[in-house]
Amino acid sequence: MAVAVQLLPLLLLVASALAGYTPRYTPDWDSLDARPLPAWFDEAKFGVFVHWGVYSVPAWGEWFWYYWKDRKDPDAEAFMRNNYPPGFSYADFGPQFQAKFYDPKKWAEIFEAAGARYVVLTSKHHEGYTNWPSPTSWNWNSMDVGPHRDLVGELGPHLREKNIHFGLYHSLLEWFHPFYLLDKQNNFTTQNFVAAKVLPELVDLVNRYKPDLIWSDGEWEAPDAYWNSTEFLAWLYNDSPVKDQIVVNDRWGREDLCKHGGYLTCHDKYKPDTLPKRKWEMCTTLDKKTWGYRRTMESNDVMTELEIISELIEVVAYGGNYLINVGPTADGIIPPIFEERLRSVGSWLKINGEGIYASKPWRVQNYNDTINVWYTTKESAVYAFFTSWPKEGVLFLASPIPTNDTKVTMLGVPNTRVWSGDTGVEGIYIALPLFSQSLADMKIWTLRLENVK
Amino acid sequence: MAVAVQLLPLLLLVASALAGYTPRYTPDWDSLDARPLPAWFDEAKFGVFVHWGVYSVPAWGEWFWYYWKDRKDPDAEAFMRNNYPPGFSYADFGPQFQAKFYDPKKWAEIFEAAGARYVVLTSKHHEGYTNWPSPTSWNWNSMDVGPHRDLVGELGPHLREKNIHFGLYHSLLEWFHPFYLLDKQNNFTTQNFVAAKVLPELVDLVNRYKPDLIWSDGEWEAPDAYWNSTEFLAWLYNDSPVKDQIVVNDRWGREDLCKHGGYLTCHDKYKPDTLPKRKWEMCTTLDKKTWGYRRTMESNDVMTELEIISELIEVVAYGGNYLINVGPTADGIIPPIFEERLRSVGSWLKINGEGIYASKPWRVQNYNDTINVWYTTKESAVYAFFTSWPKEGVLFLASPIPTNDTKVTMLGVPNTRVWSGDTGVEGIYIALPLFSQSLADMKIWTLRLENVK
Amino acid sequence: MAVAVQLLPLLLLVASALAGYTPRYTPDWDSLDARPLPAWFDEAKFGVFVHWGVYSVPAWGEWFWYYWKDRKDPDAEAFMRNNYPPGFSYADFGPQFQAKFYDPKKWAEIFEAAGARYVVLTSKHHEGYTNWPSPTSWNWNSMDVGPHRDLVGELGPHLREKNIHFGLYHSLLEWFHPFYLLDKQNNFTTQNFVAAKVLPELVDLVNRYKPDLIWSDGEWEAPDAYWNSTEFLAWLYNDSPVKDQIVVNDRWGREDLCKHGGYLTCHDKYKPDTLPKRKWEMCTTLDKKTWGYRRTMESNDVMTELEIISELIEVVAYGGNYLINVGPTADGIIPPIFEERLRSVGSWLKINGEGIYASKPWRVQNYNDTINVWYTTKESAVYAFFTSWPKEGVLFLASPIPTNDTKVTMLGVPNTRVWSGDTGVEGIYIALPLFSQSLADMKIWTLRLENVK
Amino acid sequence: MAVAVQLLPLLLLVASALAGYTPRYTPDWDSLDARPLPAWFDEAKFGVFVHWGVYSVPAWGEWFWYYWKDRKDPDAEAFMRNNYPPGFSYADFGPQFQAKFYDPKKWAEIFEAAGARYVVLTSKHHEGYTNWPSPTSWNWNSMDVGPHRDLVGELGPHLREKNIHFGLYHSLLEWFHPFYLLDKQNNFTTQNFVAAKVLPELVDLVNRYKPDLIWSDGEWEAPDAYWNSTEFLAWLYNDSPVKDQIVVNDRWGREDLCKHGGYLTCHDKYKPDTLPKRKWEMCTTLDKKTWGYRRTMESNDVMTELEIISELIEVVAYGGNYLINVGPTADGIIPPIFEERLRSVGSWLKINGEGIYASKPWRVQNYNDTINVWYTTKESAVYAFFTSWPKEGVLFLASPIPTNDTKVTMLGVPNTRVWSGDTGVEGIYIALPLFSQSLADMKIWTLRLENVK
Repeated sequence: MAVAVQLLPLLLLVASALAGYTPRYTPDWDSLDARPLPAWFDEAKFGVFVHWGVYSVPAWGEWFWYYWKDRKDPDAEAFMRNNYPPGFSYADFGPQFQAKFYDPKKWAEIFEAAGARYVVLTSKHHEGYTNWPSPTSWNWNSMDVGPHRDLVGELGPHLREKNIHFGLYHSLLEWFHPFYLLDKQNNFTTQNFVAAKVLPELVDLVNRYKPDLIWSDGEWEAPDAYWNSTEFLAWLYNDSPVKDQIVVNDRWGREDLCKHGGYLTCHDKYKPDTLPKRKWEMCTTLDKKTWGYRRTMESNDVMTELEIISELIEVVAYGGNYLINVGPTADGIIPPIFEERLRSVGSWLKINGEGIYASKPWRVQNYNDTINVWYTTKESAVYAFFTSWPKEGVLFLASPIPTNDTKVTMLGVPNTRVWSGDTGVEGIYIALPLFSQSLADMKIWTLRLENVK
Repeated sequence: MAVAVQLLPLLLLVASALAGYTPRYTPDWDSLDARPLPAWFDEAKFGVFVHWGVYSVPAWGEWFWYYWKDRKDPDAEAFMRNNYPPGFSYADFGPQFQAKFYDPKKWAEIFEAAGARYVVLTSKHHEGYTNWPSPTSWNWNSMDVGPHRDLVGELGPHLREKNIHFGLYHSLLEWFHPFYLLDKQNNFTTQNFVAAKVLPELVDLVNRYKPDLIWSDGEWEAPDAYWNSTEFLAWLYNDSPVKDQIVVNDRWGREDLCKHGGYLTCHDKYKPDTLPKRKWEMCTTLDKKTWGYRRTMESNDVMTELEIISELIEVVAYGGNYLINVGPTADGIIPPIFEERLRSVGSWLKINGEGIYASKPWRVQNYNDTINVWYTTKESAVYAFFTSWPKEGVLFLASPIPTNDTKVTMLGVPNTRVWSGDTGVEGIYIALPLFSQSLADMKIWTLRLENVK
Repeated sequence: MAVAVQLLPLLLLVASALAGYTPRYTPDWDSLDARPLPAWFDEAKFGVFVHWGVYSVPAWGEWFWYYWKDRKDPDAEAFMRNNYPPGFSYADFGPQFQAKFYDPKKWAEIFEAAGARYVVLTSKHHEGYTNWPSPTSWNWNSMDVGPHRDLVGELGPHLREKNIHFGLYHSLLEWFHPFYLLDKQNNFTTQNFVAAKVLPELVDLVNRYKPDLIWSDGEWEAPDAYWNSTEFLAWLYNDSPVKDQIVVNDRWGREDLCKHGGYLTCHDKYKPDTLPKRKWEMCTTLDKKTWGYRRTMESNDVMTELEIISELIEVVAYGGNYLINVGPTADGIIPPIFEERLRSVGSWLKINGEGIYASKPWRVQNYNDTINVWYTTKESAVYAFFTSWPKEGVLFLASPIPTNDTKVTMLGVPNTRVWSGDTGVEGIYIALPLFSQSLADMKIWTLRLENVK
Repeated sequence: MAVAVQLLPLLLLVASALAGYTPRYTPDWDSLDARPLPAWFDEAKFGVFVHWGVYSVPAWGEWFWYYWKDRKDPDAEAFMRNNYPPGFSYADFGPQFQAKFYDPKKWAEIFEAAGARYVVLTSKHHEGYTNWPSPTSWNWNSMDVGPHRDLVGELGPHLREKNIHFGLYHSLLEWFHPFYLLDKQNNFTTQNFVAAKVLPELVDLVNRYKPDLIWSDGEWEAPDAYWNSTEFLAWLYNDSPVKDQIVVNDRWGREDLCKHGGYLTCHDKYKPDTLPKRKWEMCTTLDKKTWGYRRTMESNDVMTELEIISELIEVVAYGGNYLINVGPTADGIIPPIFEERLRSVGSWLKINGEGIYASKPWRVQNYNDTINVWYTTKESAVYAFFTSWPKEGVLFLASPIPTNDTKVTMLGVPNTRVWSGDTGVEGIYIALPLFSQSLADMKIWTLRLENVK
């Protein structure tokens, strides 16, 4: 009577329970992939990712446990040997994750100031610790051990008050969960872990917090049939309380990445070279080296404001969303250098966001002669983002075809004069305003072209 | 899709899995109660109970969590308020349960010196923390959090090396397990907790450690149908690796106590007034106030040697076993005052154990004129234990009927003379040896009567 | 301008400040040794010693720091390596010494129940940590670090309420104090440490707590001239607030032990073979292996009741005092096995104390034929303590010379008959009462002989 | 025999010990103030201040202890109540100050990259904890408690390898030192604290680390006669191992601030309006709210790069030095936002430092018509710093008088053309180069004017 056998029938139950409803979607990718993506997601363009968990205590990076215990990484082992008594376990870090200064209202204000239209918080990373009081993660969750607060539940309302969509990261796998290890050893022919943890927790998250987005991860070792992903998604799309607005990514099984799901993330920091056919998202992290908080982070490890905005316009020009990550401390503080970056992006978006939010890729995405220009479009306007200021103050845009009614203005600057040029011919010269400190501080500039082709 | 529904079918599975075998016992009490008790248990007579867990850290008593959080006991609340930061949770105690000095070999030596023939260790108490690496108690077990050792597994071999039987206490309920609370709220019509925790862990314990005894507890809130006890016992008796020697008690459902199971415990510290029909056991604890270690224990809270031995002979005379409890510290130390008591009992048993181990109740259990006398019998001998030394050195035993071949000796004293008396008449006078310091130190004395009726 | 030089003149100051008074005693041993010992001390006979400090946290023995850092004892080093992170220092233990359950009232009750007439508490051991808020031990005392209580100050009043004299142990040296190490390196030609720590703290202790006894220690590496002991004692005897009742021992300089001071302790656990000429005291400890609390103490490490009482009567017969030590836990608990021993001695003293307290050595101290007999005397009575009960119930006392008025009684037993014998001849036969359990429990018995020579 | 009296004569000793030498300086301000300031200090212009100590653990601000215990500030009290057990003391924080990631080599690299020519580290703040193994601060220093490292001693060599001068901050007072409190109560008529702590530690610091600068503080409650400052300075200037290069500030007694000493600091963040007669220094802090690390610091609390550089040129124009503070974490990490600011200033100084380092105030310090201009001079050149770029690209400098040989260049830009103008007349028009992003990033620009009057 092995544990491995015990939980198998549940999956049938899940399936049949779902089958009891009248689904619009069936649990297969043909059906699920055909669901239209809720509009809010494409319009949002810019989001903030938050990696926060017990790994914020050693603050060595969110993969610490794995590097230490699975890979036996010498740095990780030395870190423990030098700083903790022999035998100290990862779970022993739990009570030190205290979130003493976690102020979700302040977080929401920072994310709003950043211009983020959605926020994705790790509800549970590969360590398995849940940032909400999950009944299937007893004594390994944020209410029972450490903060004694519902970290997920406290953030949602503050985000919604600011009209920011609330997303939840969720790792399917848990490196060291005994049930997962057992299933893995069984070559994923058993589903103890899925029955006891994955599905109950996904359902619990959806029912409790009614997220707008589920950012799935940790799928890579097992097929979606193991994870029962299509069944879950069918329920999510058909019958869950968030069936209308919910958005999901593409990490639902080792064969699905970059192929199936709500939108594509492909791999971490993925950025395509040409315009993808489906909606996609690039996720990246302010600390170039890790996603979770790292105590030894140096200022040069942090993306610069220019790097962030450059990447943002590039991503948006190609039709993607840009999800930028911060790792708060175990105390619940967003490190000031991250806060500063977020606020900088927000300042830029306050002026230039018109060409970002709710925009679509234009017929040309990028033109790079000497000056790099990226395009988006919205309604009747085309937006051209240029990343360096031409020496003589005149910018040539090779792609737009001016008409008699063409009008060009620069966002943040009331009057921008068109330099002339023949209508109907590709290419347009623009006499830019006098370069100034405040223009310089913008770093990347946006021209609104009305009535061009 | 509520969590409550998910795990139901498992129970059928368990039943059917078991049904796949050819059972000698069926999962009902008529069948199960008919199983003969393995002989070792009745012969053992004397065992040591060990309560050890996370509660050994606050060291307020093993019910601390319940008193603090459920009953909101003012003392428990004050204890936390005065000694810990606000918000400190019970699970936060976990990493402080370190068992630094746990030496199972030394424990086994002490238990052997005590004359114990079995030892019952808490594998899991009502707090749910498991003293072994239970896969269904991830990050709330002694391998993941705190000691980083298999406390159960390390003890067994040392006991067996000393020919001490190895028993495991196991609490069915867990006060605060979310699944248990859910089932309870559902009036025990759901069995999430049983499926996910109770049965897997019981089975795991049996398969891993092959215990000789399961000391079940925590049954009182739910019927045995909820716990699936009879199915488990049928498997245990029919097909488990311990089916031949395993002994269990009577705590398998709220209607079963003192009625069904392997032997009766009835209630804690239970001691009958007349000879029970079934095998029973009295469990009690050296610290009269708690079972788990209590930091503020005073010497007067501890049972005296005389109290222990008196109770032991009384229990054995009535056919019971005597299970005496110690609560080790969070460090894994058996407090010296407990060790001393155990060694004292062992010294007594070394001389007087002949009348205890493997004995049976005699036709008279107790006669109390001025001097309290308790009887047992073994093979052709009757053993009379008397608890005070008669003033003039002559002891009258009212019940035995002497014969011509009657021979009376005192254990530990080579020659004891019978005072005379007519054969065939109840009652026998015994001229005791001269009272001495070493006899006084024995505290309770044993006469072996051969060839009496 | 070395630190070593700076504090020298203080000693002159101390001397001259003292010289400002009109002393009865001069700072030399001839004068000081001539002071009559206050009567209470010799009358007290039995005291309890308490070793308590930061060493109670590692609980390895009170010399832990020294063994670990000076001797580099492999066990001590392994203890740290196995249980603490690298670099953990002894001072880091400070905050863990919390005395959470320190209840000085309860302590006083236990000491009273033990029959102790004085209690000696470590105010400061060789580690230098002070159990009172010493201004010259800033942030290394019990008010600043750890308990946040005046451990010394809280105990005194409770003792006095029970008419128990209050003594303070004080270590002159501190193993690792930088000033002490400097002076030592200077071959004790400098007195930085004495000026900055020793004298201020001794004076502070005396002025604050008005102790009845100063149990000096840690003198052995330096001469009394270094410690300025005679100056201190002259002040103590002449002008301090405790000049009338204060008692001190003999540990005031490496040449003084067993020679000078108030009474002699010679070495730890010292016990003479013949009657000493000066008042002396034997100090010993219930845990035979250490004075401070030891977590791994086993019951066999603890002195038995019989050993304690035997030693007590032996010491008293030779005119000594008996000071028995307990080591409380870092929580402030007196381990129950110690408490039990103390209460046992107290029960014995309740009956037999008449021959102990305020007694004097008799002309014969000890006679050991087959039965060991010890004598004391008080007023007109002689007390004979015998340590085993004679087989036939008749005890022969070889030394006393009976007279016509000789009357012999046993303490705790109303009537004891004299067996006869000729008066005027040494030796007396005593017919003891019938031996019983309660007599046996006494373990050692006292005969009061009135009107013998 | 009060403690208060004991240490008095030491001061005479100190004085006489010093008097034993042949001093060039006498212990009075007339003599001491006449000492020429070692040249390196005025040439350095820019330094980094580091506040690091036990206060970095609560990370509430370096005055935490005082606010909590002396002022009973409600925020500080709530902070403790909410996060620590009752009775937790400030000294209990000690072992948590661990400096796990303190890398003095990396610090030195950051300070070098910042363009700092000196660094001032808190050797001891008002809390009294010493960042070096001070023998007079036993068990309240960084070797005994917490880091177990000589924080001061490890930094020095790394700074010197980079040719950065090494300064030590030292607080004369210690809020809660019992000796200081005693002297204060005695209205500073006693000097126990000075004898036992202040002078030994100052001397120890000088002898051990041979600092280039002593940044005294904590002087304000007592006169310099109490602190024995002039005696110390006479020794420092005459006979100490650093007598040639040592620089000190003006905080040596409550009557001395802004009047006496090596250079003037007046009050924290002091900045004069006119050119002072004596050398001065402005100290300020990157976190506008505190000097020690503050966990809840937000990005808006941090000075901007522009604010820092503006203040730097203003201070240098007025002949001052600029000392900017960072507060590392208890782990020993310089928060990345501070590191980034320091590196930014360093980048600016790499180009513009020519007009800063070793410069002198010019005859005009500042001219502010529409554009704010600050002047310095060095050798034959005058440097004009301007803080906004003129709209039409032409800058008018009102004060310099051009000559025939006048040549104007912009630092970091090879060729800058003079616009013309008559020689011998005040005022000069400068045609600036075309404004560009890289010029914009400079934020403040420097013109070198050669051959102007």
